[in-house]
Amino acid sequence: MQVQIGISNHHVHLTKEDFEILFGVGKTLDNIKDLKQPGQYASAFKVDIKTEKNTIKGLRILGPLRSYTQVEISKTDSYILGINPPVRESGNLKQASTITIVGPNGELTKPCAIIANRHIHIDHKTREELGLIDIDEVKVSIGGEKGVTLEHVSIKEQEPSYFEMHLDTDDANSSLTKQDDFATIIKY
Amino acid sequence: MQVQIGISNHHVHLTKEDFEILFGVGKTLDNIKDLKQPGQYASAFKVDIKTEKNTIKGLRILGPLRSYTQVEISKTDSYILGINPPVRESGNLKQASTITIVGPNGELTKPCAIIANRHIHIDHKTREELGLIDIDEVKVSIGGEKGVTLEHVSIKEQEPSYFEMHLDTDDANSSLTKQDDFATIIKY
Repeated sequence: MQVQIGISNHHVHLTKEDFEILFGVGKTLDNIKDLKQPGQYASAFKVDIKTEKNTIKGLRILGPLRSYTQVEISKTDSYILGINPPVRESGNLKQASTITIVGPNGELTKPCAIIANRHIHIDHKTREELGLIDIDEVKVSIGGEKGVTLEHVSIKEQEPSYFEMHLDTDDANSSLTKQDDFATIIKY
Repeated sequence: MQVQIGISNHHVHLTKEDFEILFGVGKTLDNIKDLKQPGQYASAFKVDIKTEKNTIKGLRILGPLRSYTQVEISKTDSYILGINPPVRESGNLKQASTITIVGPNGELTKPCAIIANRHIHIDHKTREELGLIDIDEVKVSIGGEKGVTLEHVSIKEQEPSYFEMHLDTDDANSSLTKQDDFATIIKY
């Protein structure tokens, strides 16, 4: 059971209100490149994120605007910033780390930084075909010189979905994974 | 079968000749902290490493001086530097990436950058006790929210050895591993 891999570099989702604080009222979050997940896109807008310890520059804003503001970073980023964000499903900001987001028009500080959990985007039909109904998480094996089997990869059903697994850069780099490589789903 | 984990941050080993080029003739590579592997130590000396694309500052020189000069970096570092070093056992510099090492007294450029393979330090007696004679590599399982099973962990027998597995920062960060955590060895 093969699944394609999409590598998520650190990035930011914004509410309309926070977008306007950072970039100014009247700006529009234009789509400069569609992502594989239907309706999702990269924008040309970038922000810096900072803590008392350090700054990481140039995190891209992914669209569309959402009902929550969220910064998705890696564990490696978290050491640079001196924070300890929880591993969370996107949209779950429980105990998220407080971070300052800096845009050209303003900045804001709120608890919104997480490490995104490993997850597979899938629609109901594909989930049925692959026998993954009633299964919430799987293991995924990646081959190669630094091969790994990743535990706790959650199944994220949405309509419509492009069938792929999202990994952060730590998972991708530790296993020498490149964008659009394939991996093998293993049921628990 | 449990094994302790030692996390290797990027670091540098030097020959006496290269040490003198970088830091000056007459300098001594003092031990400021013993590492767990007998005879190995951290020195106070640091260098920068650079390529045409970028510089990473402050890699520590580990002692004692060796018969080869070697820069051990992570895949994450390699993207920053724009190079593609091979995964190698320490001391094997076949197809190593060319990099410039910059010290306070001088710099040198040579093919010496690798990604160190995952490996377990073990002495003969422990290897015998654990039934790992004639086994060259194992899998190692790390638990937790971002648990992984690491493939191709090589067995490195030396006398004397402190029994531990060395991982690079990509492997450690992807699995949320901290220094001196424990993992489980699994035979193929």
